[in-house]
Amino acid sequence: MAPPSLVANGGDIAVGKLPVTSRVSSVYSEVQNSRLDHPLALPSVFAKPFKVVDGPSSSAAGNPDEIAKLFPSLFGQPSAVLEASETSDPGSALKIGVVLSGGQAPGGHNVISGMFDYLQERCKGSTLYGFKGGPAGIMKGKYVVLTPEFIYPYRNQGGFDMICSGRDKIETPEQFKQAEDTAAKLDLDGLVVIGGDDSNTNACLLAEYFRSKNLKTRVIGCPKTIDGDLKCKEVPTSFGFDTACKIYAEQIGNVMIDARSTGKYYHCKLIVVRLMGRAASHITLECALQTHPNITLIGEEVAKIETEKMLIQMVETELEQRKQVGQYSRQFKGQSHFFGYEGRCGLPSNFDSSYCYALGYGAGALLQSGKTGLISSVGNLAAPVAEWTVGGTPLTSLMDVERRHGKFKPVIKKAMVELDGAPFKKFASKREEWALQNRYISPGPIQFTGPVADISNHTLLLELGVEA
Amino acid sequence: MAPPSLVANGGDIAVGKLPVTSRVSSVYSEVQNSRLDHPLALPSVFAKPFKVVDGPSSSAAGNPDEIAKLFPSLFGQPSAVLEASETSDPGSALKIGVVLSGGQAPGGHNVISGMFDYLQERCKGSTLYGFKGGPAGIMKGKYVVLTPEFIYPYRNQGGFDMICSGRDKIETPEQFKQAEDTAAKLDLDGLVVIGGDDSNTNACLLAEYFRSKNLKTRVIGCPKTIDGDLKCKEVPTSFGFDTACKIYAEQIGNVMIDARSTGKYYHCKLIVVRLMGRAASHITLECALQTHPNITLIGEEVAKIETEKMLIQMVETELEQRKQVGQYSRQFKGQSHFFGYEGRCGLPSNFDSSYCYALGYGAGALLQSGKTGLISSVGNLAAPVAEWTVGGTPLTSLMDVERRHGKFKPVIKKAMVELDGAPFKKFASKREEWALQNRYISPGPIQFTGPVADISNHTLLLELGVEA
Repeated sequence: MAPPSLVANGGDIAVGKLPVTSRVSSVYSEVQNSRLDHPLALPSVFAKPFKVVDGPSSSAAGNPDEIAKLFPSLFGQPSAVLEASETSDPGSALKIGVVLSGGQAPGGHNVISGMFDYLQERCKGSTLYGFKGGPAGIMKGKYVVLTPEFIYPYRNQGGFDMICSGRDKIETPEQFKQAEDTAAKLDLDGLVVIGGDDSNTNACLLAEYFRSKNLKTRVIGCPKTIDGDLKCKEVPTSFGFDTACKIYAEQIGNVMIDARSTGKYYHCKLIVVRLMGRAASHITLECALQTHPNITLIGEEVAKIETEKMLIQMVETELEQRKQVGQYSRQFKGQSHFFGYEGRCGLPSNFDSSYCYALGYGAGALLQSGKTGLISSVGNLAAPVAEWTVGGTPLTSLMDVERRHGKFKPVIKKAMVELDGAPFKKFASKREEWALQNRYISPGPIQFTGPVADISNHTLLLELGVEA
Repeated sequence: MAPPSLVANGGDIAVGKLPVTSRVSSVYSEVQNSRLDHPLALPSVFAKPFKVVDGPSSSAAGNPDEIAKLFPSLFGQPSAVLEASETSDPGSALKIGVVLSGGQAPGGHNVISGMFDYLQERCKGSTLYGFKGGPAGIMKGKYVVLTPEFIYPYRNQGGFDMICSGRDKIETPEQFKQAEDTAAKLDLDGLVVIGGDDSNTNACLLAEYFRSKNLKTRVIGCPKTIDGDLKCKEVPTSFGFDTACKIYAEQIGNVMIDARSTGKYYHCKLIVVRLMGRAASHITLECALQTHPNITLIGEEVAKIETEKMLIQMVETELEQRKQVGQYSRQFKGQSHFFGYEGRCGLPSNFDSSYCYALGYGAGALLQSGKTGLISSVGNLAAPVAEWTVGGTPLTSLMDVERRHGKFKPVIKKAMVELDGAPFKKFASKREEWALQNRYISPGPIQFTGPVADISNHTLLLELGVEA
């Protein structure tokens, strides 16, 4: 058999010829249509036979003794890396489930597409079940069998509506039993949980549960969140962050150009992303690096102000006082903006499209090799896609414990903006200049073709040491 | 001399080699940079010698007798059309002023670029003055001499910050005298007013004033407003409408996909564009045609609801009542969105870029031929740019009168959404289907290259009879 093409677009399935019929809407915009057949490159390790190689054994992000007690079957297991090999696993047919968990992030559909194509390519005869409406779909046994026709309309498309998402958790003993029953009923070899920190913690608990009961169902996580706070050395970014930041930055850039075009309005350029009620300010920092506002408040540095409206009020009060003592004579009109939901479901950028596809493809490889309790990990992301690395990181290695109601609960430690990290240091070195001189940048709308289409984001490139 | 290239990019000036130094920010995003040298096609009439031919004499949109009294020098003058000719006007050097008036709209910089390039190409030795901060710049004599270096960084860029805009009007006899003084001081052959209906009314009053005093300064208007309510048969659309609608529709599309991905939120998809306090609903209608929401309220058909939050409250009240009688058991959470300022200063779409460039080029030709009191009119917009027609429409022909404080005031009649027009009829024929079945379309971000980059908008194509 010839090695599969590096440009995968549904493996050997003629997806390009499938009609867009199964999505709720049968009508697509020109841009949506143009994305359907966007070719997705794959890391070159998938072009040849490969094996999954174990790395050194792992510990935990904090309190390893407690994590070891909470995950007796999984704690300490090694990470995994895909490496070129003489021969490949023959790849028997697998039964795999996939679930979208929590808030939407651009690219989720491509994780599923990547898994599907991997199974079609490498484990012929496999079945992929999509659990509907998040983890509740696992507990209730609500699923759809994914087919090429079903998946095709969602390739490179935003949203989570292929199988929908939900915020339920598998927590109680009864709920774990329900998940076990579903896994048994469908004879699942594996389950992929696409979610944020909480969902991946849940995935790890489920992996531990299945392993402790000697059940064959393996569980693999995938790093999803536009907030960018689920990351570590092996998982350089969570998917969706790139696209969402670009969407917000486009709007911020437009509003800044608007403000510069007239002396009448002073737009409040405080970027407040309260979408998920999250604490980390990666989106704010990335948008600042993309657009250079005069003032940016990073929650990790200063207690973040509650609302943009409050900031405007404070400025109004200050200017009113100056007016009364004759230090200010102009009119001030604040204009607040909140950018939130618009960024969660945008068409994924080329970076998120490729990254998600590789995450899904990698998740398939990890399951095929019998791995469980790992999070799909694609690295070397500043290089061309062909040079990306693929593997898995033990979910337990990302964990710490929190004391809740007198009990230790495992949690994946949120990655906050590091004040001594490269992105914040870049920002800090520039902010005085940006404050005093208008250095506004307008990133413009996400482009899918042309020379600018494949650039990722400052946060990632600075953290990887590629951008200075 | 060889005919000028059809792809104009600064005429014979090597603009591509100029550094971006004069804009306040010297740093551009990749997309902004990529737009600087975007080649702009021109209507083919500019490729050869041409002459300006008069059409039939004109009347007014309403109350022609009153308009004739208000504009004794200009009323009834013919429209003008550029036609191929054996020889061209030799093109002596001109002194021209340009002003941006009112709210920003994507493409304003390209109108100025088009005027500048026309003068460089056809009237060598000309000077173009940019009045700063809107009409106040004319009255106060605040201007900048526009040079290739000054203009280059603004080519195909959003915003009005090249010379900034303002909302002052030239109204009182003293103000008209100030404008006259500035025109005399700069020895102006012409003035181009880039603005909406009020600004073009003002331009016409100024043209009448100059003409009635036998001053040489001619005044030409250009149709600017994202609201799309400044249009007529000869002026098929105002610039900025195409880009702004695309920016709003992208966001609306994203929010609709978001809503479809989870059962938790029911996003309020009422599109409310209160930006300019305008009455016409062209933006709402165009966005509906682009995205297919379940419910769209068109102000020309139903008294438009005041805020999106009020609609959510009404739905909440209704569902609460249903809950109490056992007809509804789910949770409802409305989510309101307001899209406004983000659309005014976006990078102009390819359509708006080319349209504005042609409007500016045409304004230059009208001034050169001695015309005054016309609005630059570029037609046949559904065809490739080469086939666009170029000319001018008498501003008096767009006018009606309003009685204010016992006096007749001339006003350009706002073009409202026509309930028997093709765009509304298309919407009306589809809305039942869209209401009951989710036919959401996500237009995605504006693309500047590739097969979808040059598509304009439904409203324009439906009104031109090109789209069914």
